[in-house]
Amino acid sequence: MITLASDFGTPYPAAMKGVILERTEAQLIDVAHDFPRQDVRTAAFWLREVLPYFPPATHLVVVDPGVGTDRDAIVVRAGDHALVGPDNGVLVPASWRLADGGIETYVIDESALEPVVPAHAHSSNTFHGRDVFAPAAADVHEVGVDSLASLSFLEATDEYVDLRLPAATVDADRASGEVLVVDDFGNVITNVPGEFLENRSRLLANGEPVPVGETFAAVPAGDRLATVGSHGYVELDVNRGRGDDAFGLAVGDGVVLESPESSSGR
Amino acid sequence: MITLASDFGTPYPAAMKGVILERTEAQLIDVAHDFPRQDVRTAAFWLREVLPYFPPATHLVVVDPGVGTDRDAIVVRAGDHALVGPDNGVLVPASWRLADGGIETYVIDESALEPVVPAHAHSSNTFHGRDVFAPAAADVHEVGVDSLASLSFLEATDEYVDLRLPAATVDADRASGEVLVVDDFGNVITNVPGEFLENRSRLLANGEPVPVGETFAAVPAGDRLATVGSHGYVELDVNRGRGDDAFGLAVGDGVVLESPESSSGR
Amino acid sequence: MITLASDFGTPYPAAMKGVILERTEAQLIDVAHDFPRQDVRTAAFWLREVLPYFPPATHLVVVDPGVGTDRDAIVVRAGDHALVGPDNGVLVPASWRLADGGIETYVIDESALEPVVPAHAHSSNTFHGRDVFAPAAADVHEVGVDSLASLSFLEATDEYVDLRLPAATVDADRASGEVLVVDDFGNVITNVPGEFLENRSRLLANGEPVPVGETFAAVPAGDRLATVGSHGYVELDVNRGRGDDAFGLAVGDGVVLESPESSSGR
Repeated sequence: MITLASDFGTPYPAAMKGVILERTEAQLIDVAHDFPRQDVRTAAFWLREVLPYFPPATHLVVVDPGVGTDRDAIVVRAGDHALVGPDNGVLVPASWRLADGGIETYVIDESALEPVVPAHAHSSNTFHGRDVFAPAAADVHEVGVDSLASLSFLEATDEYVDLRLPAATVDADRASGEVLVVDDFGNVITNVPGEFLENRSRLLANGEPVPVGETFAAVPAGDRLATVGSHGYVELDVNRGRGDDAFGLAVGDGVVLESPESSSGR
Repeated sequence: MITLASDFGTPYPAAMKGVILERTEAQLIDVAHDFPRQDVRTAAFWLREVLPYFPPATHLVVVDPGVGTDRDAIVVRAGDHALVGPDNGVLVPASWRLADGGIETYVIDESALEPVVPAHAHSSNTFHGRDVFAPAAADVHEVGVDSLASLSFLEATDEYVDLRLPAATVDADRASGEVLVVDDFGNVITNVPGEFLENRSRLLANGEPVPVGETFAAVPAGDRLATVGSHGYVELDVNRGRGDDAFGLAVGDGVVLESPESSSGR
Repeated sequence: MITLASDFGTPYPAAMKGVILERTEAQLIDVAHDFPRQDVRTAAFWLREVLPYFPPATHLVVVDPGVGTDRDAIVVRAGDHALVGPDNGVLVPASWRLADGGIETYVIDESALEPVVPAHAHSSNTFHGRDVFAPAAADVHEVGVDSLASLSFLEATDEYVDLRLPAATVDADRASGEVLVVDDFGNVITNVPGEFLENRSRLLANGEPVPVGETFAAVPAGDRLATVGSHGYVELDVNRGRGDDAFGLAVGDGVVLESPESSSGR
């Protein structure tokens, strides 16, 4: 099984699929091809949250603002999974989540890849998804994660671009974090662990009082709430509405959550 | 084969696919993940029109404005098909269409489902698609529709939320119905059976004269027409244009179709 | 393997998939379903660029502004590939690219197709993708390209609507062409062969000076450049931005590329 994720929109992912299926029989599963353009951090977040639900697979990821620079192309082994993509950090949070026992990284030697040669093909400096990452992912899938060392185009390395999503600072009455991502529904996903909401029925979010609910339906349609989202983090949401609009929050904005009593003296 | 339909956008459907593929080998086919948000009736319409074209399959449907409330999760057996989703009526019109001989319904006991346990997973009150419906659909697919009773998490029931799409009132010269849905092309799909257009070359739609055509191409580009759409209903369309704009109609609006002569005396 | 391409949006492609899977077991791969509506030329371009990356397959294509007219439905054999769609030229540029040794064309006799008959199905004058092209593609896949003559609904023909994408006029210092397509990233893809950029570091594009770069990253973020795109043509792009906006160019617009010195006397 090979999953595909990119910021390519359409129809570029189809060219990657053709390249893969020319080389190997595999079930292909799209994770998303509408990640925000060239937004490595947002893609890294979603991959970390989604890929652990898959059985062992090869994951092809192309969110690559540095295409054409000297950034490396890499393969990461994470447990029974392999991730293939640019060395810009986008693979790292998912890899750490997948691999309890650490990860192995390899640099792709593009010149050692068996080239992609369709009728009248043009090699490309701008579409490494099709010309580098897709063939590498197909070949990784074909040999399996236990035989990565047998691939002549891979060289083990300890150097890669690390990327860790920011952690919140949490104490008993106050959590200080930020917005990791806003999903398609407008739900504001913070990096504050959901445990902060335990035994609370309300809190202050950036100074404004908000009820805490176990589900969206804990408040009337159109009302705001704080809840533990499906990723285990505190989300600032609106039941049947958009939390980002209601709270005026976007990716990267700071979020301070406090017990109402803790700030009552202000 | 498992089909998937939701209003999730992206990348949430990928998490459902991972959960399914962790449990069972199945070909996965997307029906749509951009159904209008939390619009049970529109999703029910499309599923009724599309699912009968599939061979026997398990159909996972998540359009679920009541997630987190006490609404049930259900499985419907309809002929050789199984439908899995929330008990809000979204599965019902498709189920009746699929099953000439009636349907069987089961409530899902979530606590009896083998839990979804990826690395570092968080159980969720807000993403039942991933945590309840996807694993249930995988297990239904694995045992097959003839063995639903063998699944310990299913209990037969006769109670479910019924949903019937509204029917039009039709006599010889007049049909009174409503707009069921507007498709991506802007075609206005009514609930008036296509037979009403037989032997007519023109009619009044909400009082305005419109030619009747067998195909879009029966009128010049940009012109309005009434035709029998691919679902068998009267559609109010524009050749190479948008019918919803031209007719000023939206979902739920009333539509009265009359023979020109029948209203000539008014 | 059957690929699917259309301008249908959603959920109509799912009905085509159901029809196919009712008739044959095949891996289904989406090329795109968001081609610009009824834009035969743009679809023809993308198919020509993407399909050659696939292994031998049946390609179902429905961009069909003439649905319901007397335009034919055709099957094209191109090498080991088969293409199925309307006879409006959309299949032609891809077919020629796929087949070094020429193509074979067949007209579909719709009345000889085994009909699509789901529960309560309605035949349709407006959805030939579901009712004609999908069943034909399934049957073509089932017999294979070497046995097309065995299909009773196919009749060989030499007449089909030809479509050739326009070629640029190129000499040593000047290339005169046009915009073939603008991709999702806003990259302006011209029909000027990439070889025109060899040994050039800058040029005039419609009179305005532009640097030539091997990759987007050759210029600072936000700057314009001319580069050889992934299709082998000159593209007018912006690093991490939209070329169409920066150059004020749209599909079909003329593009004149000149050496700076060649026009220095103006």
